[in-house]
Amino acid sequence: MIRVAINGYGNLGRGAEAAIAKNDDMELVVVFSRRDPASVQTLGAPVAHVDQMGDWVGKVDVCLNCGGSATDLEEQGPAAAAFFTTVDSFDTHAKIPQYFEAVDVAARAAGNLALISTGWDPGLFSMLRVLGEAVLPDGASTTFWGPGVSQGHSDAIRRIEGVVDAKQYTLPVEQTVAAFKHGDDVALTPRSTHRRDCYVVAAPGADLERIEQEIVQMPNYFADYDTTVTFVSAEELAAEHGGIPHGGTVLRRGETAPGVAANVGFELELGSNPGFTGSVVVAMGRAAARMAARGEVGARTVFDVTLADLSAHSQEELRARYL
Amino acid sequence: MIRVAINGYGNLGRGAEAAIAKNDDMELVVVFSRRDPASVQTLGAPVAHVDQMGDWVGKVDVCLNCGGSATDLEEQGPAAAAFFTTVDSFDTHAKIPQYFEAVDVAARAAGNLALISTGWDPGLFSMLRVLGEAVLPDGASTTFWGPGVSQGHSDAIRRIEGVVDAKQYTLPVEQTVAAFKHGDDVALTPRSTHRRDCYVVAAPGADLERIEQEIVQMPNYFADYDTTVTFVSAEELAAEHGGIPHGGTVLRRGETAPGVAANVGFELELGSNPGFTGSVVVAMGRAAARMAARGEVGARTVFDVTLADLSAHSQEELRARYL
Repeated sequence: MIRVAINGYGNLGRGAEAAIAKNDDMELVVVFSRRDPASVQTLGAPVAHVDQMGDWVGKVDVCLNCGGSATDLEEQGPAAAAFFTTVDSFDTHAKIPQYFEAVDVAARAAGNLALISTGWDPGLFSMLRVLGEAVLPDGASTTFWGPGVSQGHSDAIRRIEGVVDAKQYTLPVEQTVAAFKHGDDVALTPRSTHRRDCYVVAAPGADLERIEQEIVQMPNYFADYDTTVTFVSAEELAAEHGGIPHGGTVLRRGETAPGVAANVGFELELGSNPGFTGSVVVAMGRAAARMAARGEVGARTVFDVTLADLSAHSQEELRARYL
Repeated sequence: MIRVAINGYGNLGRGAEAAIAKNDDMELVVVFSRRDPASVQTLGAPVAHVDQMGDWVGKVDVCLNCGGSATDLEEQGPAAAAFFTTVDSFDTHAKIPQYFEAVDVAARAAGNLALISTGWDPGLFSMLRVLGEAVLPDGASTTFWGPGVSQGHSDAIRRIEGVVDAKQYTLPVEQTVAAFKHGDDVALTPRSTHRRDCYVVAAPGADLERIEQEIVQMPNYFADYDTTVTFVSAEELAAEHGGIPHGGTVLRRGETAPGVAANVGFELELGSNPGFTGSVVVAMGRAAARMAARGEVGARTVFDVTLADLSAHSQEELRARYL
């Protein structure tokens, strides 16, 4: 059994907890939290304060860092790598190289392995971007996100005066997806690739026209996209928009000979973004534990992981049933 | 530069040749053929008889075995592994375990690495089947093939009396694809998952009704499928059905929590089946050459290959631009 710790018990941590229960070769041995452990109710695993991590060295094969934000992970990643083999889903793309270095130093100093930026983007989508380009070097790639909830954009709407609650969906522009697949010479701009649908609960008596204008004109978040605003009641928002779905598509289009095209597509449709991310992090936890058991140390990415290490099956089973 | 040999110069070998030209870090140094080398016209690389392979030891980093049939590869695989690091696309699924063993023995005896059963199925589809199950252990997988040309089914039609030429397309049943994605409890039988469209050139005066009946009633090949037969002229067949397209979809559907579904889909649309297969074999050749350079020996599968080894880019570039 691979002994797993979860570090941070928010949406992602609970997603990982559910995923561990679905993997027969893994068991959750402890949840680390910054909160008072007595206040954290897991599905059964004991809870320890993050400051007590050191007590668990030797009892944990891999620690899944489930900090909810990039700020959490910038501290959490190197700190946990000093104690355990770790996996995280660090997703601030621009900061990945410096985060990799920081975690690498901490992991090497402690003789641990740290697999960073797993999940689905970065993570599975990154893997498919590299795969698509490797098998079709003469071509173009693009990624479409959604339909799915963007927490950052939902939060931006909630900060507007007169807004009680809001949910923002990012959606791919289907005509552009089709045009790209077809090989048309289509410009890939924010507006041509994605649109944004906003469901907003306004305070009683709020100026709806002003709220709508503030949303659609908001720089960076909405101004560069076709955006719809729909006002709904709090009850409607809870009933119709309570989930955290997401997904997207990585496309590679290339030529294998002049005029002979090939398309490679990878698509995710996720009922729960943190649920699926947790599930990926857990599979990556298996791989990290195995790589560490072979003596590998330092920071790694999804590009260093083999399918054999991700899978619960033996090499013999994989060859006989999956090739 | 990775020095590449191609062993077997049919459709797949020519596909690999075209792909090597698209990869700046690889060069084709020799083509091995069973034919008289003087009769083989490549795009520029020298041709040697397969019996002269031994002369190229030390001048080739990886040999791509492009034998066109399972029979070729059962001999070619172990034979070439005695001289070189090799890659092949052995695709007789049921025989893969024994083929792996035979190649493993030959490769280990010579201190070489042999990466077997690459291409897209087995190959990329195998990788995605394992990936889908690893990240969604509680779920179901299926593969749909097509739209694409089946050479075996086309050949079966050509053997019918009165048939001059024929092309058979395998197509997924779109309603079943949609039902599976939707999570419906759909039976996955030959007829529910695929249909077969046949374009047939009949000899002058042939009994078209008999030919059609012989096709649709042919056991194993057609009787278990909804099959259409369209008679066309030789000119029409050449003009409209001259390509060798193929493709398909690997789907994984699972739950991350009770009632919360996730779908993972991987789709290929290939203008040329051998062109794309050659392109995959070449990328796998890069990985095999790198694994061998690190001292790995013996047989391997796509489950042992990392994305970093498949890619022409450095780890630093991958982290900065692809994560």
